[in-house]
Amino acid sequence: MEPAETQVRFGILGCAEIAKKLSRAITLAPNAALYAVASRSLEKAKAFASANGFPPSAKVYGSYEALLDDPDVDAVYVPLPTSLHRQWVVKAAGKKKHVLLEKPVALNAAELDEILGACESNGVQFMDATMWMHHPRTAVMKELLNDSERFGQPKMIHSTFSFAGGPDFLTNNIRTDPNLDSLGALGDIGWYCIRAILWATAYDLPQTAVASRHPVLNDYGVILSCGGSLYWPDGKVATFYCSFLTSLTMDLTILGTKSSLRIHDFAIPLDENEKTASFYVTSQFGNPLVREEAVACELPQEAGMVREFARLVAGIKGNGNKPEEEWGVLSRKTQVVLDAVKASIDRDFEAVEIVM
Amino acid sequence: MEPAETQVRFGILGCAEIAKKLSRAITLAPNAALYAVASRSLEKAKAFASANGFPPSAKVYGSYEALLDDPDVDAVYVPLPTSLHRQWVVKAAGKKKHVLLEKPVALNAAELDEILGACESNGVQFMDATMWMHHPRTAVMKELLNDSERFGQPKMIHSTFSFAGGPDFLTNNIRTDPNLDSLGALGDIGWYCIRAILWATAYDLPQTAVASRHPVLNDYGVILSCGGSLYWPDGKVATFYCSFLTSLTMDLTILGTKSSLRIHDFAIPLDENEKTASFYVTSQFGNPLVREEAVACELPQEAGMVREFARLVAGIKGNGNKPEEEWGVLSRKTQVVLDAVKASIDRDFEAVEIVM
Repeated sequence: MEPAETQVRFGILGCAEIAKKLSRAITLAPNAALYAVASRSLEKAKAFASANGFPPSAKVYGSYEALLDDPDVDAVYVPLPTSLHRQWVVKAAGKKKHVLLEKPVALNAAELDEILGACESNGVQFMDATMWMHHPRTAVMKELLNDSERFGQPKMIHSTFSFAGGPDFLTNNIRTDPNLDSLGALGDIGWYCIRAILWATAYDLPQTAVASRHPVLNDYGVILSCGGSLYWPDGKVATFYCSFLTSLTMDLTILGTKSSLRIHDFAIPLDENEKTASFYVTSQFGNPLVREEAVACELPQEAGMVREFARLVAGIKGNGNKPEEEWGVLSRKTQVVLDAVKASIDRDFEAVEIVM
Repeated sequence: MEPAETQVRFGILGCAEIAKKLSRAITLAPNAALYAVASRSLEKAKAFASANGFPPSAKVYGSYEALLDDPDVDAVYVPLPTSLHRQWVVKAAGKKKHVLLEKPVALNAAELDEILGACESNGVQFMDATMWMHHPRTAVMKELLNDSERFGQPKMIHSTFSFAGGPDFLTNNIRTDPNLDSLGALGDIGWYCIRAILWATAYDLPQTAVASRHPVLNDYGVILSCGGSLYWPDGKVATFYCSFLTSLTMDLTILGTKSSLRIHDFAIPLDENEKTASFYVTSQFGNPLVREEAVACELPQEAGMVREFARLVAGIKGNGNKPEEEWGVLSRKTQVVLDAVKASIDRDFEAVEIVM
């Protein structure tokens, strides 16, 4: 079956594990279609396509270049290891492909600037694949945060993302390989914590980052566990912790002057089959003091992300809209904070100024 | 009605707000009796006694000295402002009174050492009034933490205690008066956070404290809001936040290698009338992933505290037991961490080594 005219045709660069979830999301999003997949091995690409619901008409390529040369690919989803992002996103943008890029988006802000520059100069949409941003729960929580009567101002934010990786993960996974994802846990899951903190402060960039002492690195210097504190001149404070060595947590707590918000699965709803996801509000004078708010979710959050990305792409293709630059700005803010935490680790936990 | 022979006779030094709660606790504890109250104003002491369930036979004194001179007072509860603790506890111990002391126990570890020294040399029991330590929920959580099969080892601990004090509190309360409680929020509620962190690590003293930048002080230099990070050489990390300027939170989250424990009212159960109090356990491979554990509570936690303190006192009086020194050790560990955080604030957020 050919994609409908109004559907954005996706090509997937690489057959990473996470690409399975995104393939399903592209299938579920009404304005997107699985159109092509590429791997350095044609066999692997074929197997991926048949296992992940690609239509019989889908294109299967044995090289990333070949997929990028296909003029019918509107957009690429890039789940490649971080060290390959710059090279392939710059090429994809040069071929006028819109780019949905897995996080961490780059090894550092300088690399990200090349990526964003290529997207901008080619007029293509950029978005990082921070899926939870697109869950309806996130929008409902944002309404609360924006309501100064109910929430007040945020004062303290704490976020964790951890899971126990296990021996095989810690030695063989690309996320702990210094040549592929040298940022390790900080890039892979610390990204979510830092984004959540920025999101909670309406993207008010902190002034200073101080990394936590005694981070755990593997033999190659890749971060397995770390954390840090972020400070704003107005007194706001945030702390985060990310680890491949601790049991599963995805906590986000935002303390406001009038109430506080607490969520224990902010990045991925713990039960992905549930049609609702919850957060908790504590109010000093509320009754009850702790209130659960359940938010309905019609599509998985990753499908919501694909739908929003495809909507922007369709607007550019069909209506001549400009790309939405906000997504690049959010990626860059996240990256500069991440870079500052990394710099603080490298400089013996010195306070590092965060500059955009 | 005279106290039964087996009941420890309590005298209360001062009519602080918190003393109302403790009077009720002494009434509820089966092995304790309200015996005397003292205030610098006899009228105030009389009013307090009649409003707080003291028996008609209770003694009412117009000075703290007079109460301490009463040979029938076995133990004193001391809710005086922190700056008065050293003076009055040393006097009370000299009169062989056992001492239940409100937190923060002292302005610094040197003062606490005088307090503990006086208690030790007079053979009296010392205990600080950290009430949540005596809630049955605390014991059930400790069982989980001690179970290396279920919980593993703690890796990251985060604790907050905050409430929105309001203008009157912030200007007129003793807890924000530099002459009475110069440690402000750090002493009053940060004490709980620090104790909770130590409790979670089986009182493994951290090596280093780094205070959060931009604490909020009032015009007299009293802390209204602050926080910090604590580091252990084995990689454990803890963060805390305490504030009189943020809405009500009492969070404690302990991330272990096999599961994590989360509680949102660790210091005082949000609904004190409930007969149960809950905590939450997340296990990576658990089903459900988040499990609520409700613990029954027959007595309010402060009555459980009085009962335990009175049990120790009765053992000393009746059986010639030695005072339980562990309670002094816990107070001192809490105080030295608190002192290190304060020193880090005073030294521009330098890392401060914690020494016992």
